[in-house]
Amino acid sequence: MKLFTSVHDVPSIKQFVEDALELKANPYAHQDLGKNKTLGLVFMNPSLRTRLSTQKAALNLGMNVMVMNLDKEGWALETQDGVVMNGSTVEHIREAAAVMGQYCDILGLRSFPKLKDREEDYSEDFFNKFVKYCAVPVVSLESATRHPLQSFADIITIQETSTMQPDGRKPKVILAWAPHVKALPQAVPNSFAEWMCKAQEEGMIDFTIAQPEGYELSEEFTQGADIQYNIEEALAGADYVYVKNWSSYKEYGKVLNYPEGWMMDNEKLKFTNDAKVMHCLPVRRDLELSSEILDGPNSLVIHEAGNRLWAAQAVIKAMLEELK
Amino acid sequence: MKLFTSVHDVPSIKQFVEDALELKANPYAHQDLGKNKTLGLVFMNPSLRTRLSTQKAALNLGMNVMVMNLDKEGWALETQDGVVMNGSTVEHIREAAAVMGQYCDILGLRSFPKLKDREEDYSEDFFNKFVKYCAVPVVSLESATRHPLQSFADIITIQETSTMQPDGRKPKVILAWAPHVKALPQAVPNSFAEWMCKAQEEGMIDFTIAQPEGYELSEEFTQGADIQYNIEEALAGADYVYVKNWSSYKEYGKVLNYPEGWMMDNEKLKFTNDAKVMHCLPVRRDLELSSEILDGPNSLVIHEAGNRLWAAQAVIKAMLEELK
Amino acid sequence: MKLFTSVHDVPSIKQFVEDALELKANPYAHQDLGKNKTLGLVFMNPSLRTRLSTQKAALNLGMNVMVMNLDKEGWALETQDGVVMNGSTVEHIREAAAVMGQYCDILGLRSFPKLKDREEDYSEDFFNKFVKYCAVPVVSLESATRHPLQSFADIITIQETSTMQPDGRKPKVILAWAPHVKALPQAVPNSFAEWMCKAQEEGMIDFTIAQPEGYELSEEFTQGADIQYNIEEALAGADYVYVKNWSSYKEYGKVLNYPEGWMMDNEKLKFTNDAKVMHCLPVRRDLELSSEILDGPNSLVIHEAGNRLWAAQAVIKAMLEELK
Repeated sequence: MKLFTSVHDVPSIKQFVEDALELKANPYAHQDLGKNKTLGLVFMNPSLRTRLSTQKAALNLGMNVMVMNLDKEGWALETQDGVVMNGSTVEHIREAAAVMGQYCDILGLRSFPKLKDREEDYSEDFFNKFVKYCAVPVVSLESATRHPLQSFADIITIQETSTMQPDGRKPKVILAWAPHVKALPQAVPNSFAEWMCKAQEEGMIDFTIAQPEGYELSEEFTQGADIQYNIEEALAGADYVYVKNWSSYKEYGKVLNYPEGWMMDNEKLKFTNDAKVMHCLPVRRDLELSSEILDGPNSLVIHEAGNRLWAAQAVIKAMLEELK
Repeated sequence: MKLFTSVHDVPSIKQFVEDALELKANPYAHQDLGKNKTLGLVFMNPSLRTRLSTQKAALNLGMNVMVMNLDKEGWALETQDGVVMNGSTVEHIREAAAVMGQYCDILGLRSFPKLKDREEDYSEDFFNKFVKYCAVPVVSLESATRHPLQSFADIITIQETSTMQPDGRKPKVILAWAPHVKALPQAVPNSFAEWMCKAQEEGMIDFTIAQPEGYELSEEFTQGADIQYNIEEALAGADYVYVKNWSSYKEYGKVLNYPEGWMMDNEKLKFTNDAKVMHCLPVRRDLELSSEILDGPNSLVIHEAGNRLWAAQAVIKAMLEELK
Repeated sequence: MKLFTSVHDVPSIKQFVEDALELKANPYAHQDLGKNKTLGLVFMNPSLRTRLSTQKAALNLGMNVMVMNLDKEGWALETQDGVVMNGSTVEHIREAAAVMGQYCDILGLRSFPKLKDREEDYSEDFFNKFVKYCAVPVVSLESATRHPLQSFADIITIQETSTMQPDGRKPKVILAWAPHVKALPQAVPNSFAEWMCKAQEEGMIDFTIAQPEGYELSEEFTQGADIQYNIEEALAGADYVYVKNWSSYKEYGKVLNYPEGWMMDNEKLKFTNDAKVMHCLPVRRDLELSSEILDGPNSLVIHEAGNRLWAAQAVIKAMLEELK
């Protein structure tokens, strides 16, 4: 593996989940693979889970890790070509990325969208230029439009906790929009949808997305999903509910009005098949998701965050294997 | 050891000091203990000595270390339960702490008091919730009311440098309040008092606290100490003077008026038994403590800072031994 | 080696370049040397190349590395003696440096000039006090007046890529001033000049400096260099052009008016002997140096940045050898 930015970099989700669960069972078995190899983690935005889990994953594999908070420890980067750099940008991404590639065998990059210009964000211009100019394998630590390490951890969690239902049916997974006070990126839901659609193709799950009018995700990510606008109907028979807020894709980056009743709570859980509840975290308690669910037996959120480690370790291991 | 937040977590100071001095004599003897174990250091406030000495201690024990400046690299945490999180806090400590516990075998936490509300600070609400929800052993890197790694280093330093006096008496240790321009927490003096009272019980030292009226520490920390209000009388015959400013506990967090003559200098050193002078650092020169003392033969401050390493290493080693 | 702050710490450039190229050929051959040794990297200013390359160099040598962004994670340091510290400085450099020396076997320090007071900056007061009080070997990660790791990487790059000319002459190296929008330190050009003058003495190169009137560097750094004011004449026959902006030394820290034509581009490259073009980075594209050069075959800037690693590794190795 030379690039991990979306589900399209993964030949088989089923196999990749198995790889991750093998690492979970035996975390330190591959330390020779990472010996004298260096992972550089570049953050343009804050991070807690991703920073720690990816760092730990690389350490488990015997690698060295260097963390660079480019937003705080560095300076503003220029991304446009043909610009006379007489303004506030200090270095062009062509040089900055190439230089980081000189010191690292693998790079991780986090770069959020600005939510101002849909075309710019969805072009993944910054991310793609970084990948192009650094000239080493790159792991996405969340880009403008996707968060694949999160989605991989999500499907690991579902696979690990699910059992075929008595009637032989596959687990029913719902991505359920939830309220928030801020305009959030679509990266997590885009990515989750993309992974679940492929998992559905591989026969692992059945996948439904529920959101209010105006909150439809880009169709690029939702091919094959059942799209619902009534949350209670969508929840019927659900085995997993993945709760997440996102801002509008159509009216880009906006927080639109929405009908009441989209916060996930025990009342709504009754419509499900005693569903497990997931969230990528950080979660706004009692706004997106009720405390009673988060503190109760149906919540998988901490388990799911724990699996971020094995997702990252499986990705980095696959990259190390091609470096050799 | 599963928790290190105060002297109450230490069965015997004398034994623990011996453990630390053994590590100082042989720093790298226990690297198998830390192999593939990870220490996470979480800072809600700035740090120099604590950050570096604790990191180095863990490296000496063969561990991996991940540092998280949650105040700068992360986001605001909610600590109250039952709050609809529609404000500025991004994540609840229940999730944040639990997630960090997923990636680390031991966690260290620094969290200063706000000095606004005594009850809130002295409840150690934030710290205790972190300990509860992270579900792994926790080392205090200084909490609202205590700084136990500092106090442990302090008693190591006293034990290492003291010899029984010719008349058979134990070393006399004075905690001496000193002026400052800012309102500082009581964490260091509380903790120092608590450790010295226990060391006195164990027959290691005699302990006196000297401060101006209004600067008395909470009695919870000073049981058994001789309390003095006249600095010159308190210094009589002292073998160790521990200089430190703190804000008022009674008029909580306030800088009160105080009589002249509380800065420690060579004039006042004459009242002592050629006492060694200690300070946890950072120290305000010629405000708390004179430059002539700091640059002279009576100062132990750098030696004392050096011992922070062995204090941390003894604590982490004791925790690793129970992890196995 | 106990100190690396300028070319004066290097007995023979030729030999030191050979050492670095040997490390480049065999990066992991000396890991026993760094075992259980700790490098502390202290940054008073931002860094990308220096931070990553020096960290990686130490890891290659088997060391532990602790990074301290003292400007962001720490607090303001006092450097003057005899000052009552009742203002905004929290700790004196005497204590801060001494404490860091307690936890680290080697320290690296970055400290930029303020460009307000020439005498203060050129005294290297802060840097020298840090060296004095920390009491361990110190590597400059760029000081007020010099950037020796950069200059070392530069001469490594020249040596690695140059071949004696057909007519038996040595490579001609030009340091060429270039425009910028900000007032930049003279550290990089001072240091480059100092190293090239010594390399010229050792018979490795011929060295010329070209700058507009008023931009002359301090003569302390340029002994033996050919000084030119006409860029086109200076470039005649050049094999290497080192492009760099700096603010005035004479009218200290000022950006003076300058004649047109100092940006390096393909037109000016025609005057040279198909010269290789170098820059320490970050570079302002199409202001200092044209994009066509940076993206073309004559640019060495990424290669040069890559050599920062081997420069740092050779320096740290030389220090480790004297620690043993």
